[in-house]
Amino acid sequence: MIIVLKPEATKEQADELLARIEERGLKSLYMPGSERTVLGALGDERVLGELRLESHPMVESVKAILAPYKLVSREVHPHDSVVSIGGATVGGEAFMVIAGPCAIESKEQFTQTAEQVKKHGAHALRGGAFKPRTSPYSFQGLGIEGLKIMGEVKTALGIPAVTEVVEASDIQAIADHADALQVGARNMQNFRLLKQLGECGKPVILKRGMAATIKDLLLAAEYIVSEGNENVILCERGIRTFETATRNTLDLSAVPFIKQRSHLPVIVDPSHGTGRRELVEPMSRAAVACGADGIMVEVHCNPPEALSDGAQSLFPDQFAAFMQGLRPFVEAVGKKL
Amino acid sequence: MIIVLKPEATKEQADELLARIEERGLKSLYMPGSERTVLGALGDERVLGELRLESHPMVESVKAILAPYKLVSREVHPHDSVVSIGGATVGGEAFMVIAGPCAIESKEQFTQTAEQVKKHGAHALRGGAFKPRTSPYSFQGLGIEGLKIMGEVKTALGIPAVTEVVEASDIQAIADHADALQVGARNMQNFRLLKQLGECGKPVILKRGMAATIKDLLLAAEYIVSEGNENVILCERGIRTFETATRNTLDLSAVPFIKQRSHLPVIVDPSHGTGRRELVEPMSRAAVACGADGIMVEVHCNPPEALSDGAQSLFPDQFAAFMQGLRPFVEAVGKKL
Amino acid sequence: MIIVLKPEATKEQADELLARIEERGLKSLYMPGSERTVLGALGDERVLGELRLESHPMVESVKAILAPYKLVSREVHPHDSVVSIGGATVGGEAFMVIAGPCAIESKEQFTQTAEQVKKHGAHALRGGAFKPRTSPYSFQGLGIEGLKIMGEVKTALGIPAVTEVVEASDIQAIADHADALQVGARNMQNFRLLKQLGECGKPVILKRGMAATIKDLLLAAEYIVSEGNENVILCERGIRTFETATRNTLDLSAVPFIKQRSHLPVIVDPSHGTGRRELVEPMSRAAVACGADGIMVEVHCNPPEALSDGAQSLFPDQFAAFMQGLRPFVEAVGKKL
Amino acid sequence: MIIVLKPEATKEQADELLARIEERGLKSLYMPGSERTVLGALGDERVLGELRLESHPMVESVKAILAPYKLVSREVHPHDSVVSIGGATVGGEAFMVIAGPCAIESKEQFTQTAEQVKKHGAHALRGGAFKPRTSPYSFQGLGIEGLKIMGEVKTALGIPAVTEVVEASDIQAIADHADALQVGARNMQNFRLLKQLGECGKPVILKRGMAATIKDLLLAAEYIVSEGNENVILCERGIRTFETATRNTLDLSAVPFIKQRSHLPVIVDPSHGTGRRELVEPMSRAAVACGADGIMVEVHCNPPEALSDGAQSLFPDQFAAFMQGLRPFVEAVGKKL
Repeated sequence: MIIVLKPEATKEQADELLARIEERGLKSLYMPGSERTVLGALGDERVLGELRLESHPMVESVKAILAPYKLVSREVHPHDSVVSIGGATVGGEAFMVIAGPCAIESKEQFTQTAEQVKKHGAHALRGGAFKPRTSPYSFQGLGIEGLKIMGEVKTALGIPAVTEVVEASDIQAIADHADALQVGARNMQNFRLLKQLGECGKPVILKRGMAATIKDLLLAAEYIVSEGNENVILCERGIRTFETATRNTLDLSAVPFIKQRSHLPVIVDPSHGTGRRELVEPMSRAAVACGADGIMVEVHCNPPEALSDGAQSLFPDQFAAFMQGLRPFVEAVGKKL
Repeated sequence: MIIVLKPEATKEQADELLARIEERGLKSLYMPGSERTVLGALGDERVLGELRLESHPMVESVKAILAPYKLVSREVHPHDSVVSIGGATVGGEAFMVIAGPCAIESKEQFTQTAEQVKKHGAHALRGGAFKPRTSPYSFQGLGIEGLKIMGEVKTALGIPAVTEVVEASDIQAIADHADALQVGARNMQNFRLLKQLGECGKPVILKRGMAATIKDLLLAAEYIVSEGNENVILCERGIRTFETATRNTLDLSAVPFIKQRSHLPVIVDPSHGTGRRELVEPMSRAAVACGADGIMVEVHCNPPEALSDGAQSLFPDQFAAFMQGLRPFVEAVGKKL
Repeated sequence: MIIVLKPEATKEQADELLARIEERGLKSLYMPGSERTVLGALGDERVLGELRLESHPMVESVKAILAPYKLVSREVHPHDSVVSIGGATVGGEAFMVIAGPCAIESKEQFTQTAEQVKKHGAHALRGGAFKPRTSPYSFQGLGIEGLKIMGEVKTALGIPAVTEVVEASDIQAIADHADALQVGARNMQNFRLLKQLGECGKPVILKRGMAATIKDLLLAAEYIVSEGNENVILCERGIRTFETATRNTLDLSAVPFIKQRSHLPVIVDPSHGTGRRELVEPMSRAAVACGADGIMVEVHCNPPEALSDGAQSLFPDQFAAFMQGLRPFVEAVGKKL
Repeated sequence: MIIVLKPEATKEQADELLARIEERGLKSLYMPGSERTVLGALGDERVLGELRLESHPMVESVKAILAPYKLVSREVHPHDSVVSIGGATVGGEAFMVIAGPCAIESKEQFTQTAEQVKKHGAHALRGGAFKPRTSPYSFQGLGIEGLKIMGEVKTALGIPAVTEVVEASDIQAIADHADALQVGARNMQNFRLLKQLGECGKPVILKRGMAATIKDLLLAAEYIVSEGNENVILCERGIRTFETATRNTLDLSAVPFIKQRSHLPVIVDPSHGTGRRELVEPMSRAAVACGADGIMVEVHCNPPEALSDGAQSLFPDQFAAFMQGLRPFVEAVGKKL
């Protein structure tokens, strides 16, 4: 940790800070300069965090040297983690396609869609039972009824399924009917929920928040892993920027950036990332090309009638062509579809 | 609602959409142009939302005419709402100052700070018991123990107090010890929490999310009000932008923009909004000047020792001078401090 | 164009606005609703722009229906434009790789780098002579001397070259030594420069500004094309967002979004888009996969000694492997490298 | 400057870097840690910039300690600069109001507006002759004709005037008719223009770019000052963020942040900053309250007929009330209107 002092800081004030650093068993450094004095503190920066040096009135700024996350980093765990969702694997050489409707609307709608996506090669189903919606007047999901439909359909078709969790008290019910729990962008920093997912042990798909930096996302994953659950899959789904042509700005650079620093699998959601059906295919190919371990795509048996996100859902026959078109890209990166 | 069709849309497809609009009991309009056909639908746009016209493959875009929120708007409720927090009022002519530490760290720390802020004119205390922190390795708050300290101190000093709620299951415990519940930026779209706060009835301070538009904030408030709780105070606390000189970018334009459209009181948090102690005073004055109904300021009896957010907390004597300096601005806008 | 009136607007005021619309020879529409009156104006919206309806005190908002650009759109020109840069083509089936150093530093440095990138398959050279730098204390380029080096090296090696123009008065000198003129992100809305590039006729590579929407970029291209120069290549190079892990946020969704609306070729600059050498390869592959017509990559004969942007420049042998690795992706999209 | 090495960097590589630092006559520091080695370099960081340490393959990151600007900083020049625009002063205790139309449309329009704003207390006129417009189909200004009108009107009324410069070749013509030259947001990093304004010597109003950080703005000012022109006034006019309710997000925190670090006067443009007439007054008051040295406000003799920016222009009698309402805030900060 590097501590830059204000120009008016005295030698005594610097010594006091150096003493606080040494007290914690860390090595301190004193670097007087012509315009500023700089202090260094070498060692475990999490211990240094407790010193709260940035609060001192003579401290101008504090710069961390090490990344604040640990368990999710490649420095602790150099090899790719492979996570199994009900038998389907993601990470390493296994490329995973998760597909299905935004929301489970009825048994008929979910069955029809699920049959189609399975037939065309999806490895897992998606479908929301609890829908966080910006407006209280929008469709909020079928709730427990939706979970039951998911459980029945996935069993009937023999394919794993994932669904979103919005509150810790629902974890058990979801774990009974689904193979992985998804944390939505709006809940990425619902730390109470993250901790309980850490205790639950089931695979978690953690979506990046709309205003979350990559560091924030990795720290959110650290909450889950530090409670003992290593089955975490990160999901890039677009961040909020000034560009309104697309629903969000899909930050694909985050994929190789994270893969170089973390062992966790990273998937991409091009449906929410763009909000436009006609951008889903090119951005899925791009996700593959830059190293993503999977994609999560919205498909609906009848998009114009979808109760939510119809504009970004693929028609079933679009999905069939989409899967065909994806194959050469998956092969070019040396993975298996 | 205005529906712009794609250039290739046929007259038959337009007619089909017009029929769907009429079916809902709304007035439809057909406007063929040289390059695009445009349809109109006049009436309650929330009903139109259910038609999901944007999902139709021949629809290029859908533009709403009315704001999607209703109960929080001045059209329904033209006059300023005044909310009482344990006897202190905010809204209308009453300017409210809420002050205290980021987190309750001990009974001694909270008592000392509370005595100081009360002495210098704060109308209510703040202090976190449950702290949502980006890193799992940061101080997470004293929890229930902190709530008890808050309850004791506020009773002893005879001053109302507010604290943050992070999960619906904590609402009752917090309501027992505090006069208002604060929803933090990271939970602004935790809709399950918002609904239960709507049922609870206690005043709610709803902070704007880091990636939330003003419309998102008003819709989040609509969740609470539509469950029957009208005691909602909105809080601007900065949004996330590319500028890193300040912790967030305090969007003060949001204050008059919201006040012109909503009857709810709007307060400003210059401490989180800037993250820098030396910007708290100028930005508090600016908040007053542009029409805010109150401010929420972090003050700590000993900022260099604060367990969180020390760099943005005022020293007690800074707060005393701060309150003095605020007075002429509050008077210039015709409010009472 | 859709004009939403304020709730307090009277029928007389609406009639006055309708008359102004009709005066311009456009068709007007009157749509009274329960909460708002909405007016429509059908026809060429650029004529309507002159009415400045948004300035009227009774107008709440004005929504355009048509895109504001015309000559660059596929509606006017449905097929892909193919642009030739000194004999190398970009657009349609031709995928173009432009490579070279950020800045021309000396004849030796530029020759060495140029030989390498040509040998490994680049179709054109890049290299800056006039460098816009954020700080006045950074290296500003060799100027005219650099242009001469570019002219000599490209002639000696028989490969086209592109370089940046920062002021209209330099256009002729650059056109004498280079095959295409590049407009940097900071000059994307230097409209005087754009107009003169429109008159010049040489190919222009127009980079997206850091705060420019896709619409802004297409309107900037419209400035050039409307002066008679159709040889415009658009370049996505990242936008500024809150994410600081990468130098910019490369908005790859912009590539298919633009390609669906405009006939102009679109290339990607992954070097400035990410600012990190180790992200250049994955993001170049992703650019290919989502439909880009080319890439512009920084390569330096000795990056640690580069006078600018060394951290994002590839080493020559990295570039060789990079070109090899790109091939299967280019083939998968049906283009030729 | 702090240089963090990659985990795999060897002692030899560290020694090589240390030698390069020493060669430049700077003091080097070697700080081996358990996970990373950190190097320090103490002295003039601009010299260090030439070492381009960030380009070295074993360097993970480089963190500057000192601000990269110098001449504009309070460390070099502790007291407030006061700039005179044709006899009217800004900075120190002098609060300046610059008012007028977005564009000069005709002699009649500019005269009428100028008379009104002068009568109600403006200290200087504004009005654009060269208008940078996003679309090539929008009104582009009267050019030289507009400059002449400005010259005649300001002389007739005896009030200084400012106008925008968009290209270096126009500087002399503008200097002949106006008292200060304004650099618009889109040209803030047109470094060629900045340098020539540095040589010109006339006061320059430098507007912050839409994607410019505060550091970028101060470095752009450094370009002008380092060429010998100290008469620079900075202008906050809003940055581009995800919020679309306002035209830009007015970043008022930038005002005190800059004032604490730079001696240059800082003014605010609430008209472009918000894009909405009804927000101009509250945000002007807020600008005063947080310490701005002046404001620049758009006023038009007949906003509904304005050829540009009518929606954000005040009516003349609104401006009269506005000036009255501003006075108590200016007095509360100890300045003179």
